[in-house]
Amino acid sequence: MKKKNNRITPKLRVMALGGLNEIGKNMTVLECGEDIIIIDCGLGFPDDDMLGIDLVIPDISYLEQNVKKIRGIFLTHGHEDHIGALPYVLRNLDVPVYGTRLTLGIVRYKLEEHGLSSTALLNTVTAGDKIKAGCFEIEFIHVNHSIADACCLAIKTPVGNVVHSGDFKLDLTPVDGGMMDLTRLGEIGREGVTLLMCESTNVEQPGFTPSERLVGRSFENIFMQNSDKRIVVATFSSNVHRVQQIINTSARYNRKVAITGRSMLNIVKAAVDLGYMSFPKGVLIDINELSRYPKNQTTIITTGSQGEPMSALHRMTFGGHDKISLGMEDLVVISAHAIPGNEKLVGNIINELMRNGVSVFHDRVVEVHVSGHAREQEIKLMHALIKPKYFVPVHGEFKHLMRHKELAMSMGEKEESIFVMEIGQMLEIDENSAKINGMVPAGKVLVDGYGVGDIGNIVLRDRKLLSQDGIIIVVATVDINGLNLVSGPDVVSRGFVYVRESEALMEGARNIAYQALMYCLDNGVTEWNQLKNRVRDDLSKYLYAQTKRKPMILPIIMNV
Amino acid sequence: MKKKNNRITPKLRVMALGGLNEIGKNMTVLECGEDIIIIDCGLGFPDDDMLGIDLVIPDISYLEQNVKKIRGIFLTHGHEDHIGALPYVLRNLDVPVYGTRLTLGIVRYKLEEHGLSSTALLNTVTAGDKIKAGCFEIEFIHVNHSIADACCLAIKTPVGNVVHSGDFKLDLTPVDGGMMDLTRLGEIGREGVTLLMCESTNVEQPGFTPSERLVGRSFENIFMQNSDKRIVVATFSSNVHRVQQIINTSARYNRKVAITGRSMLNIVKAAVDLGYMSFPKGVLIDINELSRYPKNQTTIITTGSQGEPMSALHRMTFGGHDKISLGMEDLVVISAHAIPGNEKLVGNIINELMRNGVSVFHDRVVEVHVSGHAREQEIKLMHALIKPKYFVPVHGEFKHLMRHKELAMSMGEKEESIFVMEIGQMLEIDENSAKINGMVPAGKVLVDGYGVGDIGNIVLRDRKLLSQDGIIIVVATVDINGLNLVSGPDVVSRGFVYVRESEALMEGARNIAYQALMYCLDNGVTEWNQLKNRVRDDLSKYLYAQTKRKPMILPIIMNV
Repeated sequence: MKKKNNRITPKLRVMALGGLNEIGKNMTVLECGEDIIIIDCGLGFPDDDMLGIDLVIPDISYLEQNVKKIRGIFLTHGHEDHIGALPYVLRNLDVPVYGTRLTLGIVRYKLEEHGLSSTALLNTVTAGDKIKAGCFEIEFIHVNHSIADACCLAIKTPVGNVVHSGDFKLDLTPVDGGMMDLTRLGEIGREGVTLLMCESTNVEQPGFTPSERLVGRSFENIFMQNSDKRIVVATFSSNVHRVQQIINTSARYNRKVAITGRSMLNIVKAAVDLGYMSFPKGVLIDINELSRYPKNQTTIITTGSQGEPMSALHRMTFGGHDKISLGMEDLVVISAHAIPGNEKLVGNIINELMRNGVSVFHDRVVEVHVSGHAREQEIKLMHALIKPKYFVPVHGEFKHLMRHKELAMSMGEKEESIFVMEIGQMLEIDENSAKINGMVPAGKVLVDGYGVGDIGNIVLRDRKLLSQDGIIIVVATVDINGLNLVSGPDVVSRGFVYVRESEALMEGARNIAYQALMYCLDNGVTEWNQLKNRVRDDLSKYLYAQTKRKPMILPIIMNV
Repeated sequence: MKKKNNRITPKLRVMALGGLNEIGKNMTVLECGEDIIIIDCGLGFPDDDMLGIDLVIPDISYLEQNVKKIRGIFLTHGHEDHIGALPYVLRNLDVPVYGTRLTLGIVRYKLEEHGLSSTALLNTVTAGDKIKAGCFEIEFIHVNHSIADACCLAIKTPVGNVVHSGDFKLDLTPVDGGMMDLTRLGEIGREGVTLLMCESTNVEQPGFTPSERLVGRSFENIFMQNSDKRIVVATFSSNVHRVQQIINTSARYNRKVAITGRSMLNIVKAAVDLGYMSFPKGVLIDINELSRYPKNQTTIITTGSQGEPMSALHRMTFGGHDKISLGMEDLVVISAHAIPGNEKLVGNIINELMRNGVSVFHDRVVEVHVSGHAREQEIKLMHALIKPKYFVPVHGEFKHLMRHKELAMSMGEKEESIFVMEIGQMLEIDENSAKINGMVPAGKVLVDGYGVGDIGNIVLRDRKLLSQDGIIIVVATVDINGLNLVSGPDVVSRGFVYVRESEALMEGARNIAYQALMYCLDNGVTEWNQLKNRVRDDLSKYLYAQTKRKPMILPIIMNV
């Protein structure tokens, strides 16, 4: 164990800026003396009440304040919830990034899309590599996951080893790349591990997550039994092994393969360029060439497995795709599991496809998907190999973290050595003890278009109000000195009622606004807020009595 | 079989006005000659894109046009998706309603809430009763379901027997009321059934739905093992047998029971009044009396099992309940299954409760809920007993109806005798044949406050737009004859950006609007639409370039 400048060993501070009590937005910070390293830099998706928000990133103000200490961002794998915030974070933090080849391949595409081509800071590593970063030494260790080239991290720190699992599963028969490196993890466990941070996504599920090969066998059966159909497979674009299995099965059954969907095209290109995916000669065709082949000799691989309204599968289903529409001669495989909140979107697609005579296979009826996350037994295996002194469950909602704590206790870990934390909380570890000690700023920074963090509670509350009952705008021009109504009031509504069928109601509203204004002017009320409040209150009462609705009411009164 | 006026047997027309390719809003119409009967009159819940809509009811314009033919509305049971549209439908259709005692007890509450106290039309029946209605004779037959007093209907028609399953399950050990009347169904099947309409909710699930008693046993275990906690159970208010089991278990463990949540209070009162529920003496206490007893000697039964934001459980969890807050001394049982779309709401509650140290039991970890709907084997039993000539699967999304068709075919029914229909489609049956023959109006009528059907696509589209990026309003007063800007332009926004931090942007927007207006006035453009379009287009381009957002832009230009 190294000591810096021969001083007393500094304390290790561990904090998560995302990924605790939430799914996604994973970002963990390790700080020791004058050094900081960051593990992952993910985005999250907006909650249902974050109307109009595109995505959510971590609050990194603590990192901005300590930018000089940062020795690097270490990426475990290339999923959005682990790399998606990089284009935003790298604008403010000019620090090196480390990741495996495929991970950085995907990062490079992302940065280019955002016009950030300064890829100079990207450092490619291979599983097994050890990177020195200040007082830390970070070792990348191969794991299985639903994307290739995924790693967990073992980090030497002045207070001992820290292991961060990243996202992982144990695949005994992986499609490519070998089983996760249990041996190396076991060695590190034997050396002694001060802190384990382990993911909790599937901790509620008993048993082991099945091998990716299981999906391959399902594809084999589907392709064998449906030689009369065109086969369309929707899956996650980043699941390189899944896509490779679809390609291989298609080739075996003499089908041409076309790719559609922007992110699918991007990732397939990256994966092929980097050697993580390959097409047998002549198998890949452009989507424009599909019509040259009999339908039942083609496969289409597409995005949209979550039912996303703008995705290729959605457009093929509801008739908005310019090249492909689906019918009796098609079979659709949805090779994914609906993420909570997306069940209805996926259900809508299945229903519409079936209504149009399309055969549909999805994960509730056939084994066309397996998870990339460890279940209970695999998580137990991680604990058994690592035997950590302290444990922090990460990557999960509170219920997952609590369940993971129970599970660790069932493995003999002590309750007082397990820390179920909130984002921003700082765990301080020295050679003898660990305790929660303070907070750093943490939270959800909302991204809407180009705006990062400019949408707050007031704007969201207004969007919510507008979405429920719309808006009524009352416009009038007054001569406030002459106590005189110059023009208006006009009443305009959007999202409230269908105006053409509600003329009496709108005329009534205009009258109420007129009377409210005249009452004020006749009684010498010239204070703008009083004038506006009177109009708003009277109109609000009238409209609620008439419709039981509460639109936003916005009086705009101008002075000549 | 009866023939009317010795004329040739008329055709039977069968159509659903709701419940096909959707969950909820169940309403089926049988028409023969001069007679119409209606089975159920349910409401549906709005889709995610129906912003601000309270509920959805069937389009009944076909019934309004044929009101003189209607002999009655026959209710299978008292759930919202079978009775919820009655307060709206009875305003326009003055027809008699038939249902069992508990069903009509719930209906009476609903009508009173809507100020419709004309309960004269409500006719109470008991399972076994047969009601003559024109050329029809409707027999109510007892079934098991997640509400007491549920029936299926066997209807004698001039073309033979029709059986409508309503919602059902087979409970061999029901809490009360006896097993569903398989014998009577078998007798009718032996007589011969021309048409079966059978529900499809759980058709994708293999096996049998477990008995309600299973939940009782889980309660027993939970109460036995948690004598140190207050126990809070959230469940569906209409599940009378479930609530009774909670009461009984509480009484056995010497706990007082308090009820909270408006619909829970209403239904418990109705059920007690009508004799469907009973409290052992001294067990029921008012919620205000809770503080008089040690926490671990009380049980609270509450609404909110779907995570509804205004429900009692939600308020208790997030601190908005005036009487109860939950902590370390509480155990919450969520005795329900999250309806698709509600998973996140329920998850939020579980996470927040656990974060506050509350123990939580839900149906993913303990058997605290069973469904009220038949699974595959029970549905097969229905087909085996009824042996219908024709079959229409009802109550389900398209994928459920299609699966049910497959299942019927696996029972030996012929594909050409099975009709997977859409709402409004008319199935015409005579003594020799059945075919789809035409359409009647059908659809979703949206209810928002007092407004029934006044919200259409334009209003919903506006609400959607407003919810995404808010609204920008540009107000100006011009003297159009003098080609002169009198006041403004003022730019006001809601739900777009936080204005105080976006002063430059808003000032820029004002400038763009000013230049657009001056350009028009300087060039003699006096046509209002041209003026407005110029402002809208220029501003739209500017704002998109600056923010990548597309707020609704509403220019309001007044003339003096």
